[in-house]
Formats: sequence, structure tokens, C-alpha cells
Amino acid sequence: MIVHIINKKRLGKELSYHELDVFFNGYLEGKVKDYQMSSLLMAICINGMSEEEIFSLTKIFIDSGDVLDLSFLSDVVVDKHSTGGIGDKTTLIIAPIVASLGIPILKMSGRGLGYTGGTIDKLESIPGYRIDLSDEEVMKQVEDIGIVITGQTASLAPMDKVIYALRDVTGTVSSVPLIAVSIMSKKIAGGADKILIDIKVGNGALLQTRKEAEELSNLVKKIGQIYQREVETIISDMNVPLGYCIGNSLEVMEAIRILKGEEVGNNLTQLCLELATKLVCMARGVPVQDAQDMVLQSIQSGSAYQKFLELVKAQHGDIEKISVSKKVKIIKAEISGVVKDISAIRLGELSVSLGAGRISKEDGIDYGVGIELLKQVGDTVKKGEGIAKVYYTKSFHLQEFHDIFLIK
Amino acid sequence: MIVHIINKKRLGKELSYHELDVFFNGYLEGKVKDYQMSSLLMAICINGMSEEEIFSLTKIFIDSGDVLDLSFLSDVVVDKHSTGGIGDKTTLIIAPIVASLGIPILKMSGRGLGYTGGTIDKLESIPGYRIDLSDEEVMKQVEDIGIVITGQTASLAPMDKVIYALRDVTGTVSSVPLIAVSIMSKKIAGGADKILIDIKVGNGALLQTRKEAEELSNLVKKIGQIYQREVETIISDMNVPLGYCIGNSLEVMEAIRILKGEEVGNNLTQLCLELATKLVCMARGVPVQDAQDMVLQSIQSGSAYQKFLELVKAQHGDIEKISVSKKVKIIKAEISGVVKDISAIRLGELSVSLGAGRISKEDGIDYGVGIELLKQVGDTVKKGEGIAKVYYTKSFHLQEFHDIFLIK
Repeated sequence: MIVHIINKKRLGKELSYHELDVFFNGYLEGKVKDYQMSSLLMAICINGMSEEEIFSLTKIFIDSGDVLDLSFLSDVVVDKHSTGGIGDKTTLIIAPIVASLGIPILKMSGRGLGYTGGTIDKLESIPGYRIDLSDEEVMKQVEDIGIVITGQTASLAPMDKVIYALRDVTGTVSSVPLIAVSIMSKKIAGGADKILIDIKVGNGALLQTRKEAEELSNLVKKIGQIYQREVETIISDMNVPLGYCIGNSLEVMEAIRILKGEEVGNNLTQLCLELATKLVCMARGVPVQDAQDMVLQSIQSGSAYQKFLELVKAQHGDIEKISVSKKVKIIKAEISGVVKDISAIRLGELSVSLGAGRISKEDGIDYGVGIELLKQVGDTVKKGEGIAKVYYTKSFHLQEFHDIFLIK
Repeated sequence: MIVHIINKKRLGKELSYHELDVFFNGYLEGKVKDYQMSSLLMAICINGMSEEEIFSLTKIFIDSGDVLDLSFLSDVVVDKHSTGGIGDKTTLIIAPIVASLGIPILKMSGRGLGYTGGTIDKLESIPGYRIDLSDEEVMKQVEDIGIVITGQTASLAPMDKVIYALRDVTGTVSSVPLIAVSIMSKKIAGGADKILIDIKVGNGALLQTRKEAEELSNLVKKIGQIYQREVETIISDMNVPLGYCIGNSLEVMEAIRILKGEEVGNNLTQLCLELATKLVCMARGVPVQDAQDMVLQSIQSGSAYQKFLELVKAQHGDIEKISVSKKVKIIKAEISGVVKDISAIRLGELSVSLGAGRISKEDGIDYGVGIELLKQVGDTVKKGEGIAKVYYTKSFHLQEFHDIFLIK
């Protein structure tokens, strides 16, 4: 039966709900082996899945655990997800903004693996910050202060956890159907009524083409309909990094500057404004211009930053103790010219090599290391001028970092 | 590096010799895990391999073990391989014929898995028959009596053994490139100068289409050229079973009847005649008609059967002790008509259910059970007439066996 199911998908045929159920739940029970699951996952990656299969698998993933029931709250609860990118600290910014406007937001995030950092890792750079809240703590906190950012609890979509870990080491991550199932099973189990998904496209993202991003957008909306959740998407660029900082503490500190209104006009600030505005529109049904005014007002009044501090305190973090490495080297421009490109993927790889991310699941993280860009695409630079700062703890070759920038 | 290689093949790109070497030898060394290998194998199944990749992988498989050097023999040594089918006992028949004509034949066979039986399992139904000869014993016996049929020795293409076992349980068996690599690495390591490959096509075979069979034929010949081995192929039908018997002892006894010249004109006898004639042509360079006369003469004179007895004795088997189960049920025609079809695949499945084959690698085999057809395709039957005999030891439902036959 097990091999028969794999053979069917290898030949590009559609699997029934029953077949997917037997296979995936068999995996949780240990009847289907890792090597059989990875074989099926690869067949899915290459041959795709029908919508019917995707809906079936999403249900199987959701049914593998609990679904949070947030109906005791008087308000709609929003959630936001990003498919992941280099320097993506948007959650740290928009969640406090939205919550400061009285819209409850419940965000369960993942750890980083490979060269895209995880929100949870970033928050852990704040000494004491707890990312392991229970379902009960999550529900209490969202009721008390209207904001939670924690790790995915063990009881929600546990199937996704084990499958994702296997996909990561078997070259089966880049599959639009599997990405849709993974995101939506977690989001639906997480209980939010309205979900905004930021789909990244580009060399620093899982998805390389606009076509794949549109497929994913289409799928997550259809899955949302089945479960009566409103799903909206934004497709955003991930060829250049978001903002100036890559590295855990560095990114939290950059997020704080934006929450305080100290940085405006860069691509990160723009994207955060767009995402937060969209969430407000979804939650409150107000026109875009009104929503945007509310968001800007939240920043200018300081209430967004206050909500961030409230979040950190509620989860036992001590923001005063966050720190970056004192060892810094400056990357200098080798020629004069204009910054034509900054490679998001190279930045990701190099920040991992510094210790800011994991190569394998068991690796620890060096929270204080990372890279801060001093120049962005379009900026003019002079030969010898500093273009980036590297925060490090163990020795490295500065020369390797020059190919981040394309200067012409 | 490992995941990068899988991703490359997932995207349909060509892997270099170095990449295949790192991956496959990494697997033998335990650095590449089962679940990573099965993922790559599935990507190969679906996206295929270039000829260059196939040649590289064959070399890697051969280099994983020893290559038998048979140059001390004064004559060319032949080998024959079948891609496997229901009721395929051709090796038991043609190897003694060819050897009786003075042409050394060295055949290393596999065990059966799934519903195609293995030659080695069939020979083990002869009490005492040793299938675990060492390289030295193999070489001595081929020199002494010109014939060996044994299990693949542990030192030849060990990579193939581990990969085949994994393919079998991960739905990655049906891949023309992987089949070519598997066959040719074993055959070349086995040392024969001239190799005949019987490629089966049909519902009871690995390959379902003539096109795939022709691809495989083309590939094995090209690989043979690289290693200066003459490779010939026959593409033969596997929609209906070969001969009348399925089951280990039953098949050995049927082979003996053919070696004694007691059965002529059925599809099994025809195929054996064709294969043996081709091997004689290859080894001796004689015209087809002469080769066929030699083969028929070998049977009629009794020398083919004598050579079979010599083989069994040399490998410690006692042919007098072979037996089939005494418990027999007769399947009777439910209507009168003509046998339009006999499903090879159903026969295979049902014989496994009786205990004649393995479902998982650890299963034992019941040598005396099986199915003997009393009618072949084209025969006229009357309602109530016996159409097959089922030899069994544990109870079963005779009703399930009726769908083997299509009578109209």
C-alpha cells in the first residue's frame, strides 16, 4: 500500500484523501519510514498536487493537532505570515503597530534554518524572552494585552513540524503545494480569523518566480475559504535585503528604530507600512487611507513602541540587556561608483557563516553577530568609503564579504 | 552540498561525476542518509538522467567492489540477465543448455522481491543447494564444469545491493536509467565477456512500454561498449506468464521437464530456445540456424539435463528431495468459453499471498506452494473444467483466484 501510493504519485496520478491520510498519519505512527516520506515528498515537488489533494493534505495536517478556539475574545484576531527572506523583521514591527490600534494579533513563528532568519531567534536575542508559551498562556496573553509572538506550540499541526524538518534536509522545500499546506495548516490551527501572508519572491526567497508566488497566493486564499478565514496576500521583492541589518540583535534594534519612527523611506519601512495598513483594513473594514493614517499615528504617538515594550515584558524579556558584539570590521568600497545591487542570498550565507544562523538543526546561534549595511541600492560611494559593518566574534576573511555589493 | 545535489536533480539539471560520487559513496559511508538518497532516487526516476550521468553512476557502482577477472579461462564466458517476470525460470533452462555446448556460463542472480520470483529462491527449493559461493568458488566451478548459478557475491557492486534494497521500498524501482546502472554494474563486475539481456515488457514486468524497453536496450549496449563487453538484448512479452508454473519448486520441476524435452511449443520453451540460440551465436559466432540446431540437439541428447544435474550436485543440492505441497485445490471455470487473457500480475500477487514470495525483505518463503495453470491463453474450456491447480499450506479463499483468467 505504502509503495503503491508513492508509485502513484511518481506517475503523476492524484492521491485520494484516504491514501494521503494513510501515508502521512502512518508516518507519525512510525509505519511509514523517513525514506518513504522523502521519496513521496520529492514526487510531490516535481509532479505537483491537484487542489483536491492540497485541501486533503491541509486537513490532515490540521487534524494532527489542536485548533485554538479564540471565540471567547470579543474582537477578530489577525495573524501575519511571511514566507521568509533576508533581513525580514517585519513581524517585530507590524505586530505592535496593529496591537496598539486595539486589534488582537497572535503570531506563532518558526526558527530560522538555512539563511533566512526566524522571528523566534530574533526575539531570543532579547535576554529572558520566552518563546515557549503554552496554548493557555497564549490565550491569556492575547486577551490581556492583545499581542503574542511565540514559537509554534507543540499541540498545533504537529505534522507540519516533522514534515518540515524532513523537507529541509531532503531538497523538498521548494514546492508551492507543500508550502501552502504548511503555512495554512499552522495559521488555521492558530485560530486567527484574518490572515495576511507576505509572499517573498527573488534570489533570497524560497520562491524564485512571480508565477509561483501567484500560485501560492491563489492556493492560500482558497484554503482560507474552506475554513472561513479571510486570507489576503502581498507579493513582495526579496532580491535585495529588507532594511539595513542582518543578524538577530541587530535586527531587533533596527525594528525598534522603525517603531520609534526614527527611520523612514527605506524598503523595510515601506513594506511594514503596507502590511500594517492591510491588516488594519482587514480587521476594521476601513478605507486604505484611513488605515494608513492610523498606522502612522500609532508610530508617531509612541504607542506602537510602547506596545512592543509591553509584549517583551509580558514574555519576560529584558530589552535593556540586548547587545551586539563589540568586535566590528568595516567593509570598504574597492572602487567609486553607484551600488547597483546587494545580493540578499550572499548576505544570508555570510551572516550564517558568522554564526547568526544555523546550518544544521542542532547548531546554536550567536545573537550579537551580523551585518549592517551602510549603503543601499542606488547610493553613490567613494573608493575606500565604508559600505557595511560586520559584527563578529570568531575570525573571518573580510575579502569574502565584498561580493555582497555590486558597484559600477 | 548534499541538499544542493538533490535540489539540482529536482530542477532537472545534470549532476557531475564528482557530485554523484560524493552523494553515492557518502551514502555507503553513512554521511548521506536513507531519506536523502530516496529523495534523490525519486528525482532521478521522474527527471531522468543524461547518458553521461548514467555512465558516471555505473562506474561508481562498479568501483564500489571487485571486478572478477576470468581471463585465466581459455574461452569467452557468457552471462544472461532478465529484468524479471512472472514465471520466469529461463535461467534454469538456458544456462545448462549453453554450458552443455561447452560455453562457460557464470550467472549471479538475485532474490525475488515483490511478485517476481528470484532465480536464487527457485534454486533454494532444491534442498542443500548453496547460493552463497565465494568469488574463489565461483571461479573454480566455472573452470571445472563450465556453469555456476549463485547469489551475487558480497564483493561485487555492493553499492547496487544497498541501493536496490532502498529502491524497492521507496517506489523508485521503475527508472530506466537506474535499471541500466543496476544491471550493468553487476554484469560487468561479474566478469563475463558476452552478456545477453532479456528485457521484459508488460503488466507483469518492471517496464510497461516498448519505448522504455528500447531505451534500456540502447543504454545497456552503450555501457557495454565502454567496458568492452558485447551486450545483446531481446525484448520479450510479460503480459501473460511464462509457461505453466508459478512457485519455487513448481518452477524448478517445470524447468526440468523442458530440459528433458518433455514440453514443446509453449511461450516459455520458445523464449528459452531463442535466448539459448542467441547466446550460442554470441559465443561461437555461428549462424542462427546452426546455433538453434546445437541447442535442440543438446536437449534431445539429454546433455542439457545432465549439465543441470551436474550443476545442482556441484552446489550441494539434492534434486531427489525437491517437493511441492500435497494440499491442492483446483480452480474451475465458471463459464464455458475461450481463455482470452491470464493476468501475469494477478498470478504474481496471488502466489506471493500463498507464501511463494516475499512482501518484505525479512519474510521467509514456502518453497512448495504455487499455482500451476492447466490452461493457457487461446485454450477452450468448459464450465466446471479445471483451469489451474493451487498448491498451498495455509488456508486461502479460492474465489479470489478466479480473476486470474479472462474467459469469454
